[in-house]
Amino acid sequence: MLPSSKLLMTAVGELGPHAVKEAAARIAPYAVRTPLIRSDHIDSLLGVAVHFKCEHMQKTGSFKARGALNAVMCLPDDVAARGIVAHSTGNHGAAVAWAASIRGVPCTMVVPSTTPAAKLANIARHGANLIKCAPNLAARQTTAEAEAAMLGGGTIIHPFDDKMVIAGQGTIGAELLEQVAGLDAILVPVSGGGMIAGIAAACAGSSTRVIAVEPKGKRLKEALAAGERCVFRPEELAVRPTVPTVADAIPTVLLGERLAWPLVSALVDPRDVLTVDDGQIAAALRLTAAELKQAVEPAGAVALAALLSEGFQRLRLHSELPLRTVAAVVCGGNVDMEALARFLAPPP
Amino acid sequence: MLPSSKLLMTAVGELGPHAVKEAAARIAPYAVRTPLIRSDHIDSLLGVAVHFKCEHMQKTGSFKARGALNAVMCLPDDVAARGIVAHSTGNHGAAVAWAASIRGVPCTMVVPSTTPAAKLANIARHGANLIKCAPNLAARQTTAEAEAAMLGGGTIIHPFDDKMVIAGQGTIGAELLEQVAGLDAILVPVSGGGMIAGIAAACAGSSTRVIAVEPKGKRLKEALAAGERCVFRPEELAVRPTVPTVADAIPTVLLGERLAWPLVSALVDPRDVLTVDDGQIAAALRLTAAELKQAVEPAGAVALAALLSEGFQRLRLHSELPLRTVAAVVCGGNVDMEALARFLAPPP
Repeated sequence: MLPSSKLLMTAVGELGPHAVKEAAARIAPYAVRTPLIRSDHIDSLLGVAVHFKCEHMQKTGSFKARGALNAVMCLPDDVAARGIVAHSTGNHGAAVAWAASIRGVPCTMVVPSTTPAAKLANIARHGANLIKCAPNLAARQTTAEAEAAMLGGGTIIHPFDDKMVIAGQGTIGAELLEQVAGLDAILVPVSGGGMIAGIAAACAGSSTRVIAVEPKGKRLKEALAAGERCVFRPEELAVRPTVPTVADAIPTVLLGERLAWPLVSALVDPRDVLTVDDGQIAAALRLTAAELKQAVEPAGAVALAALLSEGFQRLRLHSELPLRTVAAVVCGGNVDMEALARFLAPPP
Repeated sequence: MLPSSKLLMTAVGELGPHAVKEAAARIAPYAVRTPLIRSDHIDSLLGVAVHFKCEHMQKTGSFKARGALNAVMCLPDDVAARGIVAHSTGNHGAAVAWAASIRGVPCTMVVPSTTPAAKLANIARHGANLIKCAPNLAARQTTAEAEAAMLGGGTIIHPFDDKMVIAGQGTIGAELLEQVAGLDAILVPVSGGGMIAGIAAACAGSSTRVIAVEPKGKRLKEALAAGERCVFRPEELAVRPTVPTVADAIPTVLLGERLAWPLVSALVDPRDVLTVDDGQIAAALRLTAAELKQAVEPAGAVALAALLSEGFQRLRLHSELPLRTVAAVVCGGNVDMEALARFLAPPP
């Protein structure tokens, strides 16, 4: 039931701490080495020392800048010059547009017509050409491929199932290992799995484990326990192609098939998956504002939601390995102000 | 028209960079060396490099923790053991309560009955004894003195016009001089003047100037130009004892007479005072959330409001001294979530 060992060995072999270190050197001149925030109040609530890794303060407002920049920087000059293309719910789009602007090459961004205004503005400001399409994966892929062809061979940057993207996201883990002594675990929100795959790769061989946090309805915990990437019936996926969560930046149901799933299924223990619902995410978002003084998108509060859950306390009290010092990745902060206001003070 | 030179020499002599360095060493084990945040977008809007000094991430959620801790730590053991008393609109109260808990001595806090819930909770969590009084300065002072007497000689920590409080707040300036190379100016919100006096003392002798930011109605610019601490008629002060501003953490009309005014009038140029109104503060608070991803109290957005003002651009373009690299003190983040929500998305 585990991924085929050949696929796994290839994925892990290519994507270990070494690949992440190379990515870190490549992005260092442009990306932010994001700070950590602490809260005595939250520490005492939880009984652990929590370091919040502020990826909402990353360039473009989310961790996606790391992977996108690493991927764009790796391209040969002639390939990069033809242009970069991506399709995105927002954060990957902003990140790729920014990365292309850093490299000084053209960028075309395919965006679902339902993307919030704050995210569109965050893409447009980096000078990308915006192309709207229907809000479904097939339309996005088709449109992106057509745009890449029009560029005479533009490079499509996949949002998560790409070696260089994963290595770039992994630099979050590499930084945390340097920033926090005796780090027992990192809590990572999961969507397509690029960030958690990269962080797990960065931590491979260390004593820091990676705890996945999923929005309810994603069923990653079941998938890892079963050793099956997809535990949904095809008809279920057809009617519900995204996870129904308020954390709209992490809507992807299945982990990337080529790299993310093999890496995550090899490196993350199924017991180390925590599941949070919309109410928990909203409460964590309010606590993030009130206590940490951070204005984040719902996905940015997902790791704190998991820390506040009973599941985390069970893990902490019953785990063979200690959970005394942990990091929570605050993955992004791109949220419409009206939406944020509704989370902070729900209408009566 | 300047403060009497004897008073000034005493104030400046006691409160220079040396006093601030001593304070920095005293508070270093407990206070946060707060991080800086940058935004490419805001830099390009303004034409200057802005470093936001994150005092809303300080212990207790505001810069007040620095001064309060320095003051409490300086007390002899037997004096400290009798207990600490303060009266406060909130941030100073939380800071003093926290400082007393660090020192392990009892604390009584006199709070105006109008203090917002978030601020009361922020005081109570540090174990202080809360005493409510009428929301006017006379009632606060009388009640605090009575409480100090009941403790058999408790120490009242003044919120701003105290040498050790000012030296503690000055550590913000000392840190900025270390954190930012070639810093041309620091923009500092002003209420009673403790923070700006301390920062100006820390910067005395450096090439970094201090720019005061005041809420409209405070008339500090006029006061400095006239060399008069108070430019109001007594009857004006009687009917309006606080500045009418949305930045409710900085309501004090007059700078502290004993130390804050002499220091500020000696060290801050009247041309280096910027004045902002409620609309400018609200817009800056929204930009702080949307762009910097920080959830702050209105006073925390006052320095950014000044940077966004025409007054700052006039200063930048017509100043003999360069304004290329500046810091803005984000002084606090203690705000009710309902109030923050109203700022982010004003009701139609």
